[in-house]
Amino acid sequence: MSNTTKNNTGLTRRDILTGPGKGAVIAGTIAATGASSAALLSSTAVPAAAAANKAVIEPGQLDEYYGIWSSGQTGEVRIIGVPSMRELMRIPVFNRESATGWGQTNESKKILTEGLLPETKEFLAKRGWDTYHNGDLHHPHPSFTDGTYDGRYIFVNDKANTRVARIRVDVMKCDKIIEIPNATDIHGLRPQKYPRTGYVFACAEHRVPLVNDGSILDSPKDYVGMFTAVDGDTMEIAWQVIVDGNLDNVDADYQGKYAIASSYNSEGGVNLAEMMASEMDHAVVFDIARIEAAIAAGKYQTLNGVKVVDGRKGSDLTVYIPIPNSPHGVNSSPDGKYVMINGKLSPTVSVIQFDKIEAVFQGADPRSCVVAEPELGLGPLHTAFDGKGNGYTTLFLDSQMCKWNIDKAIRKFAGEDVDPIIAKTDVQYQPGHNHTSMGETNEADGKWLVSLNKFSKDRFINVGPLKPENDQLMDISGEKPEVVHDGSTFAEPHDCVIVHRSKFNPLSIWKRDDPMWEDARKQAAADGVDLEEGADEPIRDGNKVRVYMTSVAPEFSMEKFTVKQGDEVTIYITNLDDVDDLTHGFTLGNHGIAMEIGPQATASVTFTADRPGVYWYYCQWFCHALHLEMRGRMLVEPA
Amino acid sequence: MSNTTKNNTGLTRRDILTGPGKGAVIAGTIAATGASSAALLSSTAVPAAAAANKAVIEPGQLDEYYGIWSSGQTGEVRIIGVPSMRELMRIPVFNRESATGWGQTNESKKILTEGLLPETKEFLAKRGWDTYHNGDLHHPHPSFTDGTYDGRYIFVNDKANTRVARIRVDVMKCDKIIEIPNATDIHGLRPQKYPRTGYVFACAEHRVPLVNDGSILDSPKDYVGMFTAVDGDTMEIAWQVIVDGNLDNVDADYQGKYAIASSYNSEGGVNLAEMMASEMDHAVVFDIARIEAAIAAGKYQTLNGVKVVDGRKGSDLTVYIPIPNSPHGVNSSPDGKYVMINGKLSPTVSVIQFDKIEAVFQGADPRSCVVAEPELGLGPLHTAFDGKGNGYTTLFLDSQMCKWNIDKAIRKFAGEDVDPIIAKTDVQYQPGHNHTSMGETNEADGKWLVSLNKFSKDRFINVGPLKPENDQLMDISGEKPEVVHDGSTFAEPHDCVIVHRSKFNPLSIWKRDDPMWEDARKQAAADGVDLEEGADEPIRDGNKVRVYMTSVAPEFSMEKFTVKQGDEVTIYITNLDDVDDLTHGFTLGNHGIAMEIGPQATASVTFTADRPGVYWYYCQWFCHALHLEMRGRMLVEPA
Repeated sequence: MSNTTKNNTGLTRRDILTGPGKGAVIAGTIAATGASSAALLSSTAVPAAAAANKAVIEPGQLDEYYGIWSSGQTGEVRIIGVPSMRELMRIPVFNRESATGWGQTNESKKILTEGLLPETKEFLAKRGWDTYHNGDLHHPHPSFTDGTYDGRYIFVNDKANTRVARIRVDVMKCDKIIEIPNATDIHGLRPQKYPRTGYVFACAEHRVPLVNDGSILDSPKDYVGMFTAVDGDTMEIAWQVIVDGNLDNVDADYQGKYAIASSYNSEGGVNLAEMMASEMDHAVVFDIARIEAAIAAGKYQTLNGVKVVDGRKGSDLTVYIPIPNSPHGVNSSPDGKYVMINGKLSPTVSVIQFDKIEAVFQGADPRSCVVAEPELGLGPLHTAFDGKGNGYTTLFLDSQMCKWNIDKAIRKFAGEDVDPIIAKTDVQYQPGHNHTSMGETNEADGKWLVSLNKFSKDRFINVGPLKPENDQLMDISGEKPEVVHDGSTFAEPHDCVIVHRSKFNPLSIWKRDDPMWEDARKQAAADGVDLEEGADEPIRDGNKVRVYMTSVAPEFSMEKFTVKQGDEVTIYITNLDDVDDLTHGFTLGNHGIAMEIGPQATASVTFTADRPGVYWYYCQWFCHALHLEMRGRMLVEPA
Repeated sequence: MSNTTKNNTGLTRRDILTGPGKGAVIAGTIAATGASSAALLSSTAVPAAAAANKAVIEPGQLDEYYGIWSSGQTGEVRIIGVPSMRELMRIPVFNRESATGWGQTNESKKILTEGLLPETKEFLAKRGWDTYHNGDLHHPHPSFTDGTYDGRYIFVNDKANTRVARIRVDVMKCDKIIEIPNATDIHGLRPQKYPRTGYVFACAEHRVPLVNDGSILDSPKDYVGMFTAVDGDTMEIAWQVIVDGNLDNVDADYQGKYAIASSYNSEGGVNLAEMMASEMDHAVVFDIARIEAAIAAGKYQTLNGVKVVDGRKGSDLTVYIPIPNSPHGVNSSPDGKYVMINGKLSPTVSVIQFDKIEAVFQGADPRSCVVAEPELGLGPLHTAFDGKGNGYTTLFLDSQMCKWNIDKAIRKFAGEDVDPIIAKTDVQYQPGHNHTSMGETNEADGKWLVSLNKFSKDRFINVGPLKPENDQLMDISGEKPEVVHDGSTFAEPHDCVIVHRSKFNPLSIWKRDDPMWEDARKQAAADGVDLEEGADEPIRDGNKVRVYMTSVAPEFSMEKFTVKQGDEVTIYITNLDDVDDLTHGFTLGNHGIAMEIGPQATASVTFTADRPGVYWYYCQWFCHALHLEMRGRMLVEPA
């Protein structure tokens, strides 16, 4: 059964696909009306509506939620205060970051390099790189225990360079990055919700030859898709499953039995026409216990050190559920009963009932677990939940947020004459992901929804050809969702989650025994140096020189040190200040070196002193009234 | 006359300097009261005060001002909407940026490398780098004509690696970066205000040997400071002036006669005790006409291709005006009459009357141009203006914004019994730079002030050991400045300016003849290719392969292309979409390659295809409902 027969919307596929495309056509319409944006210009006068704006957090008040934002191709994670929508922190992950020295300190380089595959290290070394400097971070999701956030970790994917990373919530820093072998371009990512995380599920979006060494090239029929389970505790690959089609998004259930992924290109096509060929694509359900049993029984092959099972059609480890054209978002409802597969090119959302899936594994019609398929509008991408039985689905093409009742959708699918749609609210413009406060947990609270809109156009003063995205905050506590704030952000908040502040409890000061600087601790011990004391002079070991400094505002423990041209110099800084917010930095002038040292932290950087002369190092964090005076000299004797 | 004799505050230098320092002591006090921050926790209920909050910009409304924010050690420029305090855009400058490919595209690499000194290129090449990947961007200032912004450029400094850069306002992208020779660690930067910019003045903060090749090392008496005038139109060095002491901040007058810089270390000290030795430091006034005349008369030496004059004490090109201890900020008043030198370790701000400076050049007492020296509080760092005769000075140690009347300060200095202080408003916490709407121009409008606070501590929910800064917005339209918004930002908004939106008029779509991709245009012409048409197949030139693609949502013009392992591949993408906000991207999977291509822009990237196999490229900007399908394959044949 195709979506065009089942859902008579009057919309043909060509309507959606005509280049430059409906999205662009709509965008063009908006552009054409852009002239009227001058009419929107206002002085600082505020309308009466402001009085009722619940998103306003007055000075000194605190946000109620941590928003965990991806940044897409920017490669970082952003912590956003909700409802104020203020950026509270940037956490560099796959990108390179100038302030903190992410990608430059020895501690961050270890995290960025140690999880790379050997062939990738070799490839990068030929370019003089020790790691990638970019990433495409789409889906940030915290770790779960018993169906809700447990405050341990945040997991994220890199679509650009096929990686999965973990952020420690206690210090809000990335501590592990691994490259996923036997796969290409990790897109969808979601942690296991029950009993705990546990597994982190990751979808390889693009199909490639399983051994991608050039022996198979332009032969798409020989490409495969791959589903990966990462062990979130060890950040090692638990197992992989070969699949048909390419995978898109994924979610887990609340019972610990299944993961389910969408496939927008079940055809395995390699161009637009081929990818659009079928009326139906599918969602793939992975049965965790069956996969674990297969591996325990030795029914796997080992590829690049990973146990790989075959879950293509006909396997007893997976089922393929037909879904109308190009399903995209996959969202489990907080009551644990359903998962919504969003149609993208079909105006429908397919509702799968989890407890009807086992029958499909037993041989029932794959569509028998679909209990509703409401027609919501054009371009349904993702569905969020309020914990009160309603779904909120982004309609990309319609630029709307559709609120609908899950129970009514099921009753309508069963033949009852009810309308599941409660309200449609315009958003500005073209929403992708959305998310509600605590909405992907069993504690969804129905207060806030964020719509991550891909185009902002006339919503902000013009900042040139590259526009911000528009993260709109919606109050969903009433009957009809209401936009209360336009949040401009840099490319591209792809996805987000909204976590009640009671779930996270970060440290304010590092603990001295933190594993982040274990290598520095070991080297200092070998050198007979106490990191908290530093050393009075550089320690020389051939042409390797190690400088151990401490910092107490406004002074480094060394006013100067001397090395020889050509020395390989490692600087270790231990920040002895134990005051909340008293971060120091170490910048070495004209050497391209800068790093952050948090209160009670140690950080280090290694470089070759190749420039003879006098070079100043200084603290780049404004730590004290005598901040500018917190500096010293590296004297490099000519070779 | 010392500040301790003139200003009997009861504050001794030791009070300020005791480690970990008064700043840290204050910070510690705040930390100790942090437990009470729980009391500040509020639910989403909003107090009645919200109704009056002028900083609230409702959905669909536009900001009245462009805030141009530095980001300190993050190395980028941020465009912030004022009064909403939303980040509207990030402009990568000295940093490396994952989304746009800044530091990776051929166009950005040219900007980042062509202005480096030959010895720097050689130094970086030994590390396998073609440029620096970090920067410390402190002072963003737009170009001026006739004392106000003219909307052409924004100029910025890099303290970390001694550079000056320029941003084009029309496209909001950096177009020029130059390294400053004969100088170390550019800190203060300000453009000429009249008749136009013209010169961009840049202060080398740290004194080093003039020829810094290792022949002089631990001999601080032989170090010199350096003042640089960059030609803002050509981004070449116009001239340099050797000075005594190290320079800190700088401003220009409204007459086109002078630049004036502060020196917090007139002693030329190299450690804290030495830098604090004198009760008085100084400000240096540079007479532009006298310097130009000296150069015209041949009274210069040429160093690294730059004409360098000697402006040390005794020179007729400069005057040194004694200022109480460690002056920091330098701010010319919008009426064009005065410049404020802020004391930092003295509780005073010294007011210099511009039209009394010529007499000092003629031999008058250097202090005779000081017409006021009001005592405002502890740690005065910077002064902003409302255009109504008042100054607003940040008090770092007191954590306050002091509003004071310039005329009354002058009358008090002349002996009249008046109090220039109008109001002191608490800020949270430790303010550095401040800025008022249009406040550094002759069109200062007295509406808004931003206080860039260096510590935020308990003002936001805890995000770990690294805290955001707190950019507070103050309404200064009334008698007493009032904090209306706490703005969290990532390290470290060092300085900002607030520009009325009528002054900037950026493009929404690139012009096809933009010089940014001139090299691509030339190469395409040599290859007989029209960039707007692309080529059907890669063009091979030995082992160099050039791929010319166009993009129209949701397709690249090539579904695939084939190269050989070891080929040096250059990909040129021209975005033919001419719709507002329709940016495309090009990411090449597992190759560490990603770049932005704005509407009607061309961008390119070069790499060696060293991995045999099938690799997907895709558009990383969500450009269309079929965004995920906008992809193709690079097939790399094994060598």
